[in-house]
Amino acid sequence: MGQLPAVSPAEDKAMARAIELAARGLGTTSPNPVVGCVLLDAAGHVVGEGFHAYAGGPHAEIVALAQAGEKARGGTAVVTLEPCNHTGRTGPCVQALIRAGVSRVVIAVDDPNPLAAGGEQTLRDAGIEVLTGVRTAEAEDGNIAWLTSVRRGRPFVIWKTASTLDGRSAAADGTSMWITSEAARMDVHRLRGTVDAIMVGVGTVLADDPRLTTRDLRTGSLAIRQPLRVVIDSDGRTPAGARVRDGAAPTLIATTALLGGDEEGRVDLRAVLSELHHRGIRSVLLEGGPRLAGAFLAAGLVDLIISYVAPKLLGDGPAALVGAGVTTITDAIDLEVLDVDRVGPDLRLTARPRASADSGTL
Amino acid sequence: MGQLPAVSPAEDKAMARAIELAARGLGTTSPNPVVGCVLLDAAGHVVGEGFHAYAGGPHAEIVALAQAGEKARGGTAVVTLEPCNHTGRTGPCVQALIRAGVSRVVIAVDDPNPLAAGGEQTLRDAGIEVLTGVRTAEAEDGNIAWLTSVRRGRPFVIWKTASTLDGRSAAADGTSMWITSEAARMDVHRLRGTVDAIMVGVGTVLADDPRLTTRDLRTGSLAIRQPLRVVIDSDGRTPAGARVRDGAAPTLIATTALLGGDEEGRVDLRAVLSELHHRGIRSVLLEGGPRLAGAFLAAGLVDLIISYVAPKLLGDGPAALVGAGVTTITDAIDLEVLDVDRVGPDLRLTARPRASADSGTL
Repeated sequence: MGQLPAVSPAEDKAMARAIELAARGLGTTSPNPVVGCVLLDAAGHVVGEGFHAYAGGPHAEIVALAQAGEKARGGTAVVTLEPCNHTGRTGPCVQALIRAGVSRVVIAVDDPNPLAAGGEQTLRDAGIEVLTGVRTAEAEDGNIAWLTSVRRGRPFVIWKTASTLDGRSAAADGTSMWITSEAARMDVHRLRGTVDAIMVGVGTVLADDPRLTTRDLRTGSLAIRQPLRVVIDSDGRTPAGARVRDGAAPTLIATTALLGGDEEGRVDLRAVLSELHHRGIRSVLLEGGPRLAGAFLAAGLVDLIISYVAPKLLGDGPAALVGAGVTTITDAIDLEVLDVDRVGPDLRLTARPRASADSGTL
Repeated sequence: MGQLPAVSPAEDKAMARAIELAARGLGTTSPNPVVGCVLLDAAGHVVGEGFHAYAGGPHAEIVALAQAGEKARGGTAVVTLEPCNHTGRTGPCVQALIRAGVSRVVIAVDDPNPLAAGGEQTLRDAGIEVLTGVRTAEAEDGNIAWLTSVRRGRPFVIWKTASTLDGRSAAADGTSMWITSEAARMDVHRLRGTVDAIMVGVGTVLADDPRLTTRDLRTGSLAIRQPLRVVIDSDGRTPAGARVRDGAAPTLIATTALLGGDEEGRVDLRAVLSELHHRGIRSVLLEGGPRLAGAFLAAGLVDLIISYVAPKLLGDGPAALVGAGVTTITDAIDLEVLDVDRVGPDLRLTARPRASADSGTL
């Protein structure tokens, strides 16, 4: 075996850029992954850039190749995900790369999807040098929803919670507008724009009648693309006039009549996620209420937690989390805190459960 | 009126150092303030440093003057608090400064204590140039407990709380060892070493039988100086064999029999603070439980909050704060977050209530 090719500084920089580009597709590529690609010519200069913008649209490599034209020949394609080998809605990218005459391909993450994989080998068979494992962790983070969904066969679940410093989601009289700041609420709308579905329990619908749309908080105008709204509603109690039933966005009312129930007559959460997966949903933002969040955590079905903590104290009122299946301190759900940021006057903690019943290869 | 004297870079730097020196006295100077002093010679070189280390011991200026000797003549005294003008357990510092022949005195904070004030005028009358208002906010922060106690006639109250991210102080079965990390617990012992008293409710004594001593967590050895232990115990339920009654530190059991009660037969918290103030206590660390903290917050008697948040979720179990007198969201107790730090795996938030019923001139 010969010497392994090493990543050049220009290629490493190109990969950082490709990861940045990939992120622009978040929220619009499902069921596809986000992918970014940077093409370098033989001298290491950038001659093309592209990202996958929406399902059915051209792949990142195709966009970059179209931009580079003849300058790609003899150059290097730097791509966040192993180029696809199959003919889906678009032709396979590996063939396009071979036709364009690139001499080298640098990859961050191998494609875990058996339908699309094999691209690397096809490239090698065509005499192209392939280097993998460049900025892998960073690229995986950027594609975490899609990778999780491929590896686990269910969408990536983000639990968003907002509470006071003493862990309450509303005051004793039930009022909760607004616990967190406008800056935090705008941040939530940005977050909604990156997911495929937004989920709440029927209790939240009955209590707050939320819209669950992605919109500009200042103008009220709706984003062009709206995530699927999902209401966990075992007994079908969502009122006919509820805002989630308006035409602003598609909605799934997850009842036992539709999806079957568990022994206690409640919608099975795995069945809901499975249904969403079949619909091409790769990421879900779980927004409330406290018991639904508890059920997801107890089932090990939460992948990421985004917790907005307002610098306020209430001392009474409903808790932000209830019934997570923990009865004694040694069974507490341990979190790995990934980030602590200030959003306006509020804190935003980003964390993930250290171990979950559902954790597989990820 | 002539031109106002300006602070020189050497004096500004000396004041920063004096504030640092002052902090070394935290926890041992009550009922006195912490004070630091740096002496500069006529050329601006440091010739003496001192801080007030314990009540009855020499004042900061005296220590610095003793170190400087003749080099103080014609120089500048940089001091965090207006030098005292009265003869207490030690002679007045202004006379010592005049005798030493300093030509200039730079002060951060004016003495709010009418007994000690007047130093500035006495210095001026002696022909010494006096500059005030240098690094005032910083020096006030360092002396906040003493300043609060002088201005409000009661000790500075720090509420220390430890909870999970969902605001719980124990699991459903009551277990709470340990919610926070060893690093956080060591930090609490460091904090205990800076206050004059540690306070809990009798419920905490009955539930946990805490020692409430300041000790080295690794060796278990007690600190030389122990804060007063205070138990709020309206009906005198603290068991004879409770650890807080051992000889490791002095203890005050605050019963209605001792301090009188309110209309509901509970110890009046202001009466407790007043009693502590008369005993020379300038700072109190309130450690629990949730209802006592709620009562202090409801009464506007909390000056600072130090909240350790463990990256854990429980979903059930007692809340860290109960009964703070808030029933609707618009009445939530607003906090100003001063700092967010990581202590081991935990977060430590330092905050203060934005407005309190008790807020006066501070």
